[in-house]
Parts: sequence; C-alpha cells; structure tokens
Amino acid sequence: MSSVSCCASRASFSRLEDFESLAEKRLPSDVWEYYSFPSDGFTLQENKRAFQRYRLLPRVLRDVSTVDTAATVLGSRLDMPVAISPTAHHSLAHPDGEKATAKGAASANTAFVVSSLANYSMEDIAQAAPQGVRGFHLIPQKDPGRTTELLRRAEGAGYTAIWLTVDHHGRPASLMESAEGVRLPNLSFGDAPMEFRSSEFNAYMRDNLKKPVTWDDVVWLRKNTQLKIVLKGILSAEDAKEAVKVGVDGICVSNHGGRQLDGVPATIDALPDIIRAVDGKADVYVDGGVRSGTDVLKALALGARCVFVGRPVLWGLACNGAEGVQQVLQLLKEQLKLAMAQAGCSRVSDIKPSLIVHESYYLHGCHCPGS
Amino acid sequence: MSSVSCCASRASFSRLEDFESLAEKRLPSDVWEYYSFPSDGFTLQENKRAFQRYRLLPRVLRDVSTVDTAATVLGSRLDMPVAISPTAHHSLAHPDGEKATAKGAASANTAFVVSSLANYSMEDIAQAAPQGVRGFHLIPQKDPGRTTELLRRAEGAGYTAIWLTVDHHGRPASLMESAEGVRLPNLSFGDAPMEFRSSEFNAYMRDNLKKPVTWDDVVWLRKNTQLKIVLKGILSAEDAKEAVKVGVDGICVSNHGGRQLDGVPATIDALPDIIRAVDGKADVYVDGGVRSGTDVLKALALGARCVFVGRPVLWGLACNGAEGVQQVLQLLKEQLKLAMAQAGCSRVSDIKPSLIVHESYYLHGCHCPGS
Amino acid sequence: MSSVSCCASRASFSRLEDFESLAEKRLPSDVWEYYSFPSDGFTLQENKRAFQRYRLLPRVLRDVSTVDTAATVLGSRLDMPVAISPTAHHSLAHPDGEKATAKGAASANTAFVVSSLANYSMEDIAQAAPQGVRGFHLIPQKDPGRTTELLRRAEGAGYTAIWLTVDHHGRPASLMESAEGVRLPNLSFGDAPMEFRSSEFNAYMRDNLKKPVTWDDVVWLRKNTQLKIVLKGILSAEDAKEAVKVGVDGICVSNHGGRQLDGVPATIDALPDIIRAVDGKADVYVDGGVRSGTDVLKALALGARCVFVGRPVLWGLACNGAEGVQQVLQLLKEQLKLAMAQAGCSRVSDIKPSLIVHESYYLHGCHCPGS
Amino acid sequence: MSSVSCCASRASFSRLEDFESLAEKRLPSDVWEYYSFPSDGFTLQENKRAFQRYRLLPRVLRDVSTVDTAATVLGSRLDMPVAISPTAHHSLAHPDGEKATAKGAASANTAFVVSSLANYSMEDIAQAAPQGVRGFHLIPQKDPGRTTELLRRAEGAGYTAIWLTVDHHGRPASLMESAEGVRLPNLSFGDAPMEFRSSEFNAYMRDNLKKPVTWDDVVWLRKNTQLKIVLKGILSAEDAKEAVKVGVDGICVSNHGGRQLDGVPATIDALPDIIRAVDGKADVYVDGGVRSGTDVLKALALGARCVFVGRPVLWGLACNGAEGVQQVLQLLKEQLKLAMAQAGCSRVSDIKPSLIVHESYYLHGCHCPGS
Repeated sequence: MSSVSCCASRASFSRLEDFESLAEKRLPSDVWEYYSFPSDGFTLQENKRAFQRYRLLPRVLRDVSTVDTAATVLGSRLDMPVAISPTAHHSLAHPDGEKATAKGAASANTAFVVSSLANYSMEDIAQAAPQGVRGFHLIPQKDPGRTTELLRRAEGAGYTAIWLTVDHHGRPASLMESAEGVRLPNLSFGDAPMEFRSSEFNAYMRDNLKKPVTWDDVVWLRKNTQLKIVLKGILSAEDAKEAVKVGVDGICVSNHGGRQLDGVPATIDALPDIIRAVDGKADVYVDGGVRSGTDVLKALALGARCVFVGRPVLWGLACNGAEGVQQVLQLLKEQLKLAMAQAGCSRVSDIKPSLIVHESYYLHGCHCPGS
Repeated sequence: MSSVSCCASRASFSRLEDFESLAEKRLPSDVWEYYSFPSDGFTLQENKRAFQRYRLLPRVLRDVSTVDTAATVLGSRLDMPVAISPTAHHSLAHPDGEKATAKGAASANTAFVVSSLANYSMEDIAQAAPQGVRGFHLIPQKDPGRTTELLRRAEGAGYTAIWLTVDHHGRPASLMESAEGVRLPNLSFGDAPMEFRSSEFNAYMRDNLKKPVTWDDVVWLRKNTQLKIVLKGILSAEDAKEAVKVGVDGICVSNHGGRQLDGVPATIDALPDIIRAVDGKADVYVDGGVRSGTDVLKALALGARCVFVGRPVLWGLACNGAEGVQQVLQLLKEQLKLAMAQAGCSRVSDIKPSLIVHESYYLHGCHCPGS
Repeated sequence: MSSVSCCASRASFSRLEDFESLAEKRLPSDVWEYYSFPSDGFTLQENKRAFQRYRLLPRVLRDVSTVDTAATVLGSRLDMPVAISPTAHHSLAHPDGEKATAKGAASANTAFVVSSLANYSMEDIAQAAPQGVRGFHLIPQKDPGRTTELLRRAEGAGYTAIWLTVDHHGRPASLMESAEGVRLPNLSFGDAPMEFRSSEFNAYMRDNLKKPVTWDDVVWLRKNTQLKIVLKGILSAEDAKEAVKVGVDGICVSNHGGRQLDGVPATIDALPDIIRAVDGKADVYVDGGVRSGTDVLKALALGARCVFVGRPVLWGLACNGAEGVQQVLQLLKEQLKLAMAQAGCSRVSDIKPSLIVHESYYLHGCHCPGS
Repeated sequence: MSSVSCCASRASFSRLEDFESLAEKRLPSDVWEYYSFPSDGFTLQENKRAFQRYRLLPRVLRDVSTVDTAATVLGSRLDMPVAISPTAHHSLAHPDGEKATAKGAASANTAFVVSSLANYSMEDIAQAAPQGVRGFHLIPQKDPGRTTELLRRAEGAGYTAIWLTVDHHGRPASLMESAEGVRLPNLSFGDAPMEFRSSEFNAYMRDNLKKPVTWDDVVWLRKNTQLKIVLKGILSAEDAKEAVKVGVDGICVSNHGGRQLDGVPATIDALPDIIRAVDGKADVYVDGGVRSGTDVLKALALGARCVFVGRPVLWGLACNGAEGVQQVLQLLKEQLKLAMAQAGCSRVSDIKPSLIVHESYYLHGCHCPGS
C-alpha cells in the first residue's frame, strides 16, 4: 500500500486520516474547530459519504507497466490531477503559513490557490516557491480601482489564475482566539489595519469589500484581466451555463467544504450535471470530501479535469510544515497511481466514464421474479 | 450563524433544539411527555428526517444585498412565512399561556392560530396582543347554535380565519396530573364545567361535541361565516380536491405532529401531491418537523405558502414566556434569511421549485456502466 | 390509545410487545427460544420491518361514528379480520394448551387453526369452546387411510377448514428439554407412541408421515374432503396460480414465521404479487410480523382478506391463559378499530388499496431539478 | 439445521463463522491479519452484505425426496458446486499446508485450485490426494521457457486447469513475521532462493516474474497448453467478452476477496452482467463473501456454475487440518442441500433465475397512491 514517512512523527502514514488525527492533537482546539467547522454539518459528511457510493469497474490485463499521473490544468503541466483549494489562515497551522504551503505544493509539482485570507502577502508566497503554479482567490472591493490593483499584483507575482468564490454568505465559523492579530495582507491597502478581528479591521472589511458579488462582477473581471478565471462554488447546471456564457475558464464544483448552506448536494454528486451543462466549454474541477486516490480516480472518471483539496493540506501543514503538505500530496499521488494501475489506466486520459458506476445500479436494479 | 439571546438562560441559542433541551429541563415530566407524545412514534421522527432527504441547489452571484422574508397569508402581511399552529394547553408551559404566545407572535409580526383547547378565552388572547394576526381552531358542537356562537365570538374578537382539525380521532396522549383543573373557556357554554379532566367536564364534552365531524360540517361552516376557512390534517390528494370543491381557503398538510395515526407519510413528503391536486385554487401550508430556516426554505420551494410550527413555540414559551416565543420565531426568520441569501433569493417569491431536489435524484440515479 | 388490562400482571398493556416482554420473563428459556427461533434470522426481523415501510394515507371527514371490524372468512363471520395461525406445543406456554387458546379465540369471536403438533386432541380442543370457529392443520400420512381418518375426525369435530403447511423442510429449532414427554395426539394412531421426542415416537414419525408432500397430495385432499382447503406457506405467484388451479379455497402467504428458509421476502412484501396472481379466485391471507392494528390495516389495504397471528397468541397464552389469548386479540381489534376510524373506514370493505403507499413512493420518487 | 462436528474443538459448528471465530483464536495475530486483510475494506464487507440483498422465492410441493448437489465443472464431476479458490501460504494455517487442503478437498469430492504461492510443490500436493480434482494458479515468468516448464509440471502432476489471476497489482497486505522463511517451491527454479521475504528471494521475484501480465499472455497460454484456462478477477462485461474472444474456458468473477482495488462492486452484484456478456460461451464462477448454503444457492440462481471459497477453507485448515477443510465444505454442502429442498430443487439444474429476486423489487417498487 502507498505510504509516506511523516518525519515529524516518525510514523508511516498510509491514509490522509492519519494526518487528520495527528493534526487534531497538535492544533489548539479553536483552530481545529475552525478548520473542521461545522461539527454538525450534514453536507460536510455527505461530501465524503458520496464518494463511497460510486463503484469502480477496473479493466484487467492492460499494459500498466508505467503509470503516469501528469495532468494539464489551465495550461500548466502538473505532476498529478490534484491541487490545493484556497483556505484561510495557514499561519494558524504553521508559522510559515502559506509560504510553507507554496513550497510543499511546488515540491509535489502541483498548483496552489492562495486565499485572499492568507496570512502572507501574495508576493511573499510567490517568492517562497517561485517555480510553483499559483492561482489567487480574489475578494472584489467596492472600489474597482482597488480590485484592479489586486489583479495587477497577482499578474506581477506570476499568478496564472484568478479564483472567485461564489458561495460565501457570511455563515461564520466559531470564534478563534488563536487568530487574534494575525495579518491579512491581501485584503487591505495602504495603511489600513491588517490585523484580523481588531474592531478597526472589521469596520474596514465592512466598508471596503463589495457585497454582494454578482454576475456583473464576473463580466467586469473578464474584461479586466488576461489571467484565467475560475468560479468556485457552483452546484447547479443553470449557473454553470451562465458561467460558460460570461467566459470563465474553469468551474470548481464546490460547497465550500460544507461550511456555507447546509443540505446542498455532495460535490461529487453535483458534478455530473455540471459536466453535462458545461459540455466541454470550460474546465470543471471539484473539491470537497476527497480523501484518497480512489476518490480522485472517481472524480476524474465522472469528468473532472482536476480535484482540489483543502483541509487535508492544512493537516499536512500542521503535522510537518512544507514537508507535510508535500507528503499529503505525495500520498494522494501514490494512491492514485496504484488505483490507476489496478483499474487498467496508464495515463490520466485513460480514465473514462466506463470505469465508474453508481451503487444504485447494483442496489436498485430491478431483478424481477422470473426475469 | 444566526442566533438569539435567550434572556432567561443568558445563553445564546443558535438552534431550535437548544430551546427544546432547556424546555425539557424546565417542564414537569408529564407536561414534557404530553408535548412530546408519542415517544415511540415513527411519523413523529419521520417528519424531521424527511426534510433532511431534500437537497437545496443554491443559485450564486445573484443580488441578495437585501433579503426580505415577508409573506402574505390569507390576506395578512406577515414578516415571515412561518406562523404558529394550534396546540393545546399553553398554560402548562407558562402561566400566561396563550396570552404570552399571542404577544410573542405579534412581536415577531406573524400569525397565531389559537386552539379550542386554549386555557384562556379567545377574547382575552386577542386583548393581550390586539395588533396580532389570529386564527381560531374550532371544534364543532352538536348544537349548531353553539357553533354559531363560537363563530360570532371569533369574528367579534378579530380572528381572521377558522381552522378545522380533520385528523383527530381520540388517540389520547399520556395522562397529565399537571393539567388537572386547568380551564378550557373556548369549549363550554354558560355555567358548564370548564375544568379539564373533571368528571363533569368529560361528560359535558362527550355530550356536546359533534362527533364525527364530516364534509357536511365544512359545507355548513362555509355558509355560516365570512372568515377564511383552513382544513388542517389533509394528507391525500383526494381529500385536498374535495376541500377545494367545498370552497376552503387553505389546506394545512399535517399529520397532527405524529400524534394520531402512526405510519402516515411525513408532511413534507405528502406536500407535493397536495400542491398538484389543489393546483393553485387554495393556499397550501404545512406543519410537522420544521426545525430550521432551511426546512422553511425547502417547504416553500416545494410550493407551501407558509409553514406552521407547534412544539418549537411551546419550547420558547416554556423557556422564556412571550419573549421566548418571539425568540423562536426570530431565530427561524434569521435562519431563513441567511438560507435565502445563500440560495440566491432576495424575496419569498424568488423561492422556486428549481431550488430543491430530492436525494433520490442523487442516490438512485442510474449511472450505468459505459453510459 | 387502545389498551387491555392484563389481569395476571395487573398492568395495562397497550402494545403486543408488552405481552412479549412478560412472556419472555415467564417462560423457561428453552421454550422461549423455541418460540422465538431463529435468533439470528433475517426474515424473522424483515417480516416486522417490512410493515414499517408502508405508509397509510388516511381519508378525513368521513362518517366513522361507528366502526365495524367484522369480516367473513371461509364462510364464517368473525368479529375481526385477525385469526390464529397454527403453531405447535401450546402446552409449553400454559397447562391448558390449545384448549385455552380455543377458549380465548372463541371469546374474541375469531378463528383458531389447530396445529397437528397440538398437545390436546382435536376433539378435546373443540369441546373446550364448541361455538368457536376452527381449522385443522393436517400432516398427511403415508397411509392414505390414516389421512382419511384424520379428515373424518376433523369433520366430525366441527372443523371447517383443512390447512396444509407447504413450506416445512426440517429446519429444526433448538432442542427443548421442557418438551420431553408432551403428547401429540393428532399425529399418531391406535397404540402408537405419542410422547414427543421419545425414540419410539421419532421412529414412528419417520415411518408414518408422508414425505415429501406434493401437489398430488393437494389434489387427493380436494377429492377426499368437503372442508375448505387452505395452503399455508406460498410466496411465489407461480405456486399461487397452481394452488388456484387445483381448487384450494384459500392461500396463506407465509414464510413460517422466518423459521424455515432464511432470506425469503417478508410476507407483506410478497402479498401483492400473490393477490395479482390469484385474481380473486381464492381468499388470500397473510401471517408473519403482524404486531399492531395498523399492520392489520396495511395487510387488508394490500388485499388480504384476513391476517393470522402466531407468536403474539403464544405470548398471551403464556401471560394469562385463555384470557391472555383473548386480550391479545382484543388489543389488536381495538387498535384496528382506532386505525380504521383515523383512516376514515367504518367497515372492513372500506379498506381500499388507495389507503396505502409504499415508502419508495416518497423515498425514491425522482424530483428532478427544475421539474 | 446442518452442522458438523469439529473434532479439534469438540464443538458442533453450524455456521462458517464458528470456524472463523476459532481460527482467529488459534492463529498468530499477524497471520490472522494477513488472511483477513484489509481490516477497513469496503469491498471486503460489501461482498458479504450483497448476498443479503437478494431474496429467495422458494417453490413448494415439489418432489424433493432426494436432493442431489452434484455438479460438473470444467469436465470434472464434483459432489457440490463449491470448490476452493487459490490462496497463499497454507502452511501458516497448518504445518501440512496445501497437502492438508488437498486431502480435505478430495474427501469432500470437490476441486482445489493451488496457488503459485503455495508452500508445497504442486507435485507434493498432488501426491497428498491423488484422486482429487486440482487446478494450478500460474504466475507467468519473464522467460517463456520457464512458464512452459511450469505448465508441463502442472500437466504432469494431473492438474486439469490453469488459473490466471488478473486483478493483482501489488497492494500488499501487512507484513508477516510468521512468514519469514516459508518456502515457495512453485515460483523459483533450479537453485534460486525459495524462502519468502529473504532479500535474495525478493530480488529474484522482481527479476523473474512477468509484469504486467496482459491479454497477449492469455493468448500465448491458450496456444501453449491443452489444460483448461480460467481467468480470475474479471468484473466488467467488456473484459468478460475479451476473455471469451481469446478462448478461455472459464471466468471467475472475483475482486480478490476485497484485497486489491477497494470500492469495486461485490462479486455477486457484478455476476449478472458477466453472465449476460459471456452468454454461455464459457463457464462463469464467482468467489468472495460466500458464507452459507443460501449464498451458494443465490449465486447459482443468478447463473454461476460453481462458487469458490477462500478464507473459509483457511479457517477450517487452521481449526482442524485436512479434516477441518473437509468439515467446512461438508457444512456448505449440507446447508445447500437443505436450502435446495426448501426452495423446491432436487438437482442443481433445477436452480433457476426465477428463484431469486433482488431486494430492490420489494424496497423500491413504486406502489403509487390509488394504483
């Protein structure tokens, strides 16, 4: 079985959940609860359960003497079809924060989408791993000039894509004492306060961030940057079609890791309708609940070009800094490689819809008496 | 996340179940068991479980800068599409009984349907919150003159609708010592006994209440009052069509909170067939198992014009009197508002069937091999 | 709620399971295990679970001022569509054995099918309650003359139907010390040994009982008695059609209470196909897993003319002799009566298929997005 | 109920799980874990659960005075349609290893497929039970001459079939201290090292075994032996058709007992599509999760010609050597015989598709209101 050696713990970790357990032990409880939020979430659990409801139908006796997991995502060649979703506050997991995450991602030769709520500036993060592939998760400002300034900074720092999170409506996670005073240098300008949760900062946020963000903002964005644009948080076919219409390059099927509206579908379940609606006119990605190489294989068989992981990367970061991030990604890659070999796929392009069947085919197929 | 501050407990309550837990602690056990009856009920639990089987498909990037939960129900403008179902014996939860409930409902700008088994007279309840929107739950008398007298009292006291409970057939909840001697001033006349469970009262009830109540009584009612008429307890399309035929204004899909025939469908599951059968010719409401703002959103997406809550209001009443009732309603409203924003709805009229999908769409969709 | 007073325990029993619990306490453990066999049976549990998967759709505002549960079964008028299935060894539950069961059944004005493995002779049982309606469960003998003798005895003792159990193939329940030496006077002839489990008796059984019993025996039976004939243990449409062809009067859909082939369907699930196959050309009954009045209502709504109960009667017998049997039947009748009133049925003939819906209608109905 | 007396434990074992429990107690924990691997496997459990989702529909009143379980598999007459799948390292369960297994299989008059990872040479195993029916599980060598040598040895030792395992891709089970130094005499040649897990042996394996094995190897095999060829590990209809095309004699639907790619279908669920794809042009077998005679009956009703068991045989071997193996097989045969009698089948050819129904027929059949 695939496994990676986790230096910090000197243990051999063969499942992402091993990182999860160790991270839970190491992190302050308020940080752990913030990352794991919401504790009673239906969708949070459903994201994971849903993967278990798909069955793989392997093909045998194929030549899998070499298995290549390489993938091209938004024009960048990655070593695997697994990259890092934007998540906030990496400094709470490790002092080097997003700089460490960027190094880990670059070591694994995959992409990292930096959150606007990162604790290091996008320039510092870029410098920490200059060769890495990076996207920037943008939060539009009321003042379009300031949004433009953020775009120019991202372009200047070598980011290749702008991600817009479209499913965030202020369902706050639990309070975090540990987060008092951490810096958010990609959200404020000039001499504006940058310390999270200071009252000045909260007022600054309220007064300067655009709210709500609408389709008009996507149209504006399309006109104002040459970077690739990805919308993260789409669940309905209707919205996916609109996204294609306004010219986005990618759609990430996401429910914000179950942190926003509870009771929405698992992302892997929502994926097929989006794939059909987009009909090849944009890349489709998925995040939420990916915990193993077979999960990645299933998402790709259903049509995703790449999967993104959020929490598992934070666990790796908490366990072992940049190296932990790289270990988490490496483990997923090794698991994917084994699963591909077992399924008869030597390249990512061999991963076809015929490899996957929903359990309903077996559980609800009607074998009538006498038939 | 939405939450309300519950003064009496000085705690911040973010879920209706927080009120439930506190109410269970505060109430005498026989009263708690009466409200919660039946402890082994399948339908009681199914009402709640069924809501979890529907998935919301939010729409993103809509302008939800303002979200308005206001709704018009039977001609009255309410601040939210959530109102109070008739339940018996509010004095067992709080000494001010239905007077407190009426105040709480009025503070939240929504409607309260007063039970015939209220412990205060309909006039006293009206006076406690004169500006409130009120319905009266009528129990027909053998003597039509006395039923007429009740109608005239309701009209005189500013009630706008008569509710008829059509699914009650004498499956009694557990006995209640705490209820000995409470008054039921809307059930008896002149110098008739009004103390619950006295032997004289039981005999009076047996001799004076009409039993059974049939469609003929609805026809009679339609002829004898100008108030709106709502039938509560309909579960079949056949009965819904009959109700429309005899001219009712509203139908409340209800299974009496699981207190009568066990093994009937959850109300949210029974709702779509009723909506289809009624075909817009009357309002359709639903009660049973509503515990959150997303439940309300789901019921409205399936076509209900308003949802009604019973037990949660009693929990609020037990926790904090009129203020507790208002807190429960306020919490539901805040949850609904957030859920609407997350789903891309700025008005109740934006809540469309396309927002909701049954889990069977995901769980039982057949993704055949090779398809 | 319906309840009966159980004299022996001075408790008020409102559920059949109350009798079950008390019987378990009172009976020797080997007898309890014999009645409850098999402890790990899938079908045994499935019989009960399956009833819970059907939903009742009550009709409201019907005239249910009187509710009449009377039913006509094989030409006999019974006070309720619930009667007693053949089960072995009633003496292990109560010293009066089947004589007490017959008295209980007669007090409740319903029918009792006496097993060939009864511990009293069919004549003694008849004499204990001469006015009762009785069937006799026949085990064919190798010597047709002896089978004829059993038929003549049944006819002479006023039995109205012969029941043939067609699903018994020697899957023995656990051994029973308590059963050593009990008599089986309806199985042997002349001076043959009648004591259960004596080596002479076992040899006698092996040498004298016909094995296997086939369709030819049913044809023979049809020619050799004027009594009604019922086949108990049919689960397939194919066998039901054959039964009609050879001229039986009734079919009891049964899986031997889960005691024979495990993994067969629950009887209530198997019922609809049998109803369709028989197409009114014979009565169809069902036994297995009936534990409440709503179970009875569901079986009748699906087309059964009568339900039969086995274990619950043994529990009543163990708790309180003839009176216990009558209490169990009375409780089922009261529960059925209440359920009929709640469902809008004043007579058994009002119980129609439209009253019942399988949960799959709600759980697996496809509410597609946007539909 | 069927049961066998397990001499070593002096207990009467009526379920395969009784052997499992005793084996777990007797075996070193690393060996137990190796046999039971993987402890967290979904497919491992699903193989067993899936059998429970099929229902048997017995036919009654058939002449089952004699029940004959005999079956012809690849031209050999076996006493039952149950034989032994190849599994590795029988010496870890019992010192006589595969020699004992061969004796047990021969005593039960059924077939045994010897693994290439057997701890005794194929010649020694053949000699231990010369009259037994044997297949040999071949691992192709890089040097075709050596593969030919293995084929000639198998032919010379009276093996009748070559089995090729097509679903093994190096997902290793846990390490086994107990396995240090055991011999693998069917994998190496001349003076090559034969001791498992010595570093020389591992290097030898890496350098000499063909990897990957592809369809070309099956074609080569077909040309180079007159023995029957069986492919074990096929799950997709597409691969089954290819297998027929290249001329194999049998296909064993298998997922390697859940030890390789997790998340694949249960074998009994995958069987029907394979049966349809093969369309009678080859034998179809199934292994994985068979634990009782009703499981065997279900597999045969779905179209399998024979089922194979792996772990249960190792349990028998661990409990009681050759006799334990024979007891496990005997128990399955007795259970099958009883189940056939109960289902109305006197010969294996009487086991028809009409005997079996998937639970979805009952659980998800739509009984619409009013239908």
